[in-house]
Amino acid sequence: MQQFKWRVSALFVLICYIINANQLTAQINKEDSLFLRKIYDRALEEQIAYKWLYYLSETIGHRIAGSPQNMAAIEFTHQILDTIGCTKVWNQPCTVNYWYRGAPEVVEVINHPLVGTKKIHALALGNSAGTPEVGISGEVVEVKSIEEVKKLGEALKGKIVFFNRAFHDADYHTFTSYGSCVDQRVFGPNAVAKFGAKACLVRSMSGRRNDVPHTGTSIFDEGVEAIPALAISTNDADLLSQWIAVNPTQIYIKTNCEQRGLKPSYSVIGEIKGSKNPNEIIAVGGHLDSWDVGGGAHDDGAGCVHSMEVLYLLNKLNYKPKRTLRCVLFQNEENGLAGARTYAQVSNDNKEFHLAAIESDAGGFTPHGFSYDADSVVMVKYEKALSKWKDLLSKFELKIQRGGSGADVGQLKSQKGLLLGLRPDSQRYFDYHHTEADRIDAVHPRELALGSAAMASLVYLMDKYGLGD
Amino acid sequence: MQQFKWRVSALFVLICYIINANQLTAQINKEDSLFLRKIYDRALEEQIAYKWLYYLSETIGHRIAGSPQNMAAIEFTHQILDTIGCTKVWNQPCTVNYWYRGAPEVVEVINHPLVGTKKIHALALGNSAGTPEVGISGEVVEVKSIEEVKKLGEALKGKIVFFNRAFHDADYHTFTSYGSCVDQRVFGPNAVAKFGAKACLVRSMSGRRNDVPHTGTSIFDEGVEAIPALAISTNDADLLSQWIAVNPTQIYIKTNCEQRGLKPSYSVIGEIKGSKNPNEIIAVGGHLDSWDVGGGAHDDGAGCVHSMEVLYLLNKLNYKPKRTLRCVLFQNEENGLAGARTYAQVSNDNKEFHLAAIESDAGGFTPHGFSYDADSVVMVKYEKALSKWKDLLSKFELKIQRGGSGADVGQLKSQKGLLLGLRPDSQRYFDYHHTEADRIDAVHPRELALGSAAMASLVYLMDKYGLGD
Repeated sequence: MQQFKWRVSALFVLICYIINANQLTAQINKEDSLFLRKIYDRALEEQIAYKWLYYLSETIGHRIAGSPQNMAAIEFTHQILDTIGCTKVWNQPCTVNYWYRGAPEVVEVINHPLVGTKKIHALALGNSAGTPEVGISGEVVEVKSIEEVKKLGEALKGKIVFFNRAFHDADYHTFTSYGSCVDQRVFGPNAVAKFGAKACLVRSMSGRRNDVPHTGTSIFDEGVEAIPALAISTNDADLLSQWIAVNPTQIYIKTNCEQRGLKPSYSVIGEIKGSKNPNEIIAVGGHLDSWDVGGGAHDDGAGCVHSMEVLYLLNKLNYKPKRTLRCVLFQNEENGLAGARTYAQVSNDNKEFHLAAIESDAGGFTPHGFSYDADSVVMVKYEKALSKWKDLLSKFELKIQRGGSGADVGQLKSQKGLLLGLRPDSQRYFDYHHTEADRIDAVHPRELALGSAAMASLVYLMDKYGLGD
Repeated sequence: MQQFKWRVSALFVLICYIINANQLTAQINKEDSLFLRKIYDRALEEQIAYKWLYYLSETIGHRIAGSPQNMAAIEFTHQILDTIGCTKVWNQPCTVNYWYRGAPEVVEVINHPLVGTKKIHALALGNSAGTPEVGISGEVVEVKSIEEVKKLGEALKGKIVFFNRAFHDADYHTFTSYGSCVDQRVFGPNAVAKFGAKACLVRSMSGRRNDVPHTGTSIFDEGVEAIPALAISTNDADLLSQWIAVNPTQIYIKTNCEQRGLKPSYSVIGEIKGSKNPNEIIAVGGHLDSWDVGGGAHDDGAGCVHSMEVLYLLNKLNYKPKRTLRCVLFQNEENGLAGARTYAQVSNDNKEFHLAAIESDAGGFTPHGFSYDADSVVMVKYEKALSKWKDLLSKFELKIQRGGSGADVGQLKSQKGLLLGLRPDSQRYFDYHHTEADRIDAVHPRELALGSAAMASLVYLMDKYGLGD
């Protein structure tokens, strides 16, 4: 009988607990659901990110680290952060290497039996060398990989090596294709320079067939002298491959690039101090620099205005964060990561803890969710916290899954916080990435606003509930 | 003891069943997962829908029902269906009402103290009347709803009534905004004509602020004489509202529209006969007609090429359907639904059963899934079947949820099959819908291909496994 009583009362407690927990969850979810709705309403109605992006990408324009326009972008974003409720706004110094393109490059096929002499759409890659004033010319050798280069070895001496491994169109996510091809651009010119190649051409990093060349960084090892290295358009890569198949093919190249040395620059940081756990930082960020063509609208103007709008929205909606919220506009992501490295170093030196950091560096398209990464020690705890918000976020068509975060926030990994990357629709990204076409007209104001709202929603939840324990 | 034995053996059977069922599910899922991967690979690599759409929207161009170009579209799609493995291709006759725009319309604000005389960007709505040769003019009255019109009543006599209720930008899905505003365009002109209004202007159905007017159908009741009815751009709607607030505003309108009467037309149908259940039909469809501006690329060239590519892909991948698969390119969706009504009538008369029908009429953007509808008697059964494919489809970022299907396949509801609509990303759709801007350059080949692949995947699963029982 005693035992029976105990069972009944234990059952009663359990039922009460279940009801209570359910009620609490329901309450939390309703309140949070309403707040997320407010975030989305404001972002979609006001579309302020688009207005900021217009200024950044069109009025200022492209802004490679070290350039005068880069300083304009620092000043512009600092002034915006000053007006959106930050407790503190500052420029964090870093030193960047200023590579300068100079006058437009010229690439031509010369005296080919099929086409005679014909211009090729090209853009020098970051860190490319300039040619002598009269240009250079030589025979082209087509390769598909760095492994192939290593096999050819000394046979490449005096040649112009042409990397032509194409995007795998069947990949659903275009970043997967990019990931499997971009080694040609980043490491290819260095690999062929070691064997004495005269110059290097690389098929543009895009699945789209057109005449638009895509620039991007190329890294030369210390002790390897940089050679002229250029991206050519996908159309021209297909044509060049056909010409080479028919006849030995000579190419003329003229580049006007130079290294202008080290320059002082800055990441721009805005912060709203937390009311209860100020020592736990939740950061959102994009990178302030762009390549030196187009307007850097998707890459990464979008990430900058997303990040600024997160603070703007939460402030406008009178949300008082428990933790410290930071918007970090990293400097020099494209060509050295000086900003992110400095930021992480300073943060570690100051014994800061970033509970979470979200990077937006995949464009201003409709967000499909976030991917995340963390130290294995804390992964399970964080995943448990994230799983609670699944239904709430899925209302806005957002999914959270394991994956990378981003090159900038990735520098914070040793702090063992949760590192996230915003994951927008990727189908159109590589139409624009590192090209003249990456301008405001390639960005849709609603799609851009949804990115800010997605990030602000997750920041709100992480700030309000923490990430476990 | 006997009882114990029975229990043990029942447990054994149950365990075997569970293991077996799990193995079977795993097998099915792996095979299906691979087949879906093949569908996506082919669609993304070949991008054939984009090539067809280029011809349909650019070489043929816009193709309102009854127009000569509409006949070209019938012939083009019939010829494509002839080449993609159909057992049978036919044109199904229907009778359409041919409304003709004539020379470009003119709308001007006249002698206004703020702006003098100024052109307004306008497009006559489908079924609009033409004005007399000299045009008409009158004072504008701004309203926000048909209810307001009913209150004003006879006060609208001789006036030009201007409907100006804007899209609700905060709606995540732009079709929600459209649904809450489009009554102004469809029923507004008729409502004001009844009170003797001289003409009707309607704010364009778009959340985007620009100078692009959006046409679309307007319906006049029998016995109500049509009046000139035009859409004006969102920018001009905002301006006109400001001018009216300052001073009584006179408008000049010249339209050159006419009803050209009944014309013969056709829906185009291609069919692959089923090998086991030929009497169960699974249909995919879009509408062949478009409005008479732009190229009808998203609306609904995309739906037509999606639907043709479903049969193309399954045929190229050597899939032999158990059920009969049909591609139906409905005629006259925009201005009367004659094709869909005839199709459903003929199908009912022939005692056909459409197990499922998927409509694509929401553009060629990245698909987010499908919405579905069915008679309540069969809903649970169908939902059970659909729920089995949730994980498989979510790999391709597709969700299935209750909602509408489409105006064309919706006509088949009495057959008690499953009616579905493809649901692409909706953020950009109302930038293009019913405008000059709905051309091939507004469509991305990868996004378009993903729509075909999504539809082909679901058709494959429904054909292979049926929908329950």
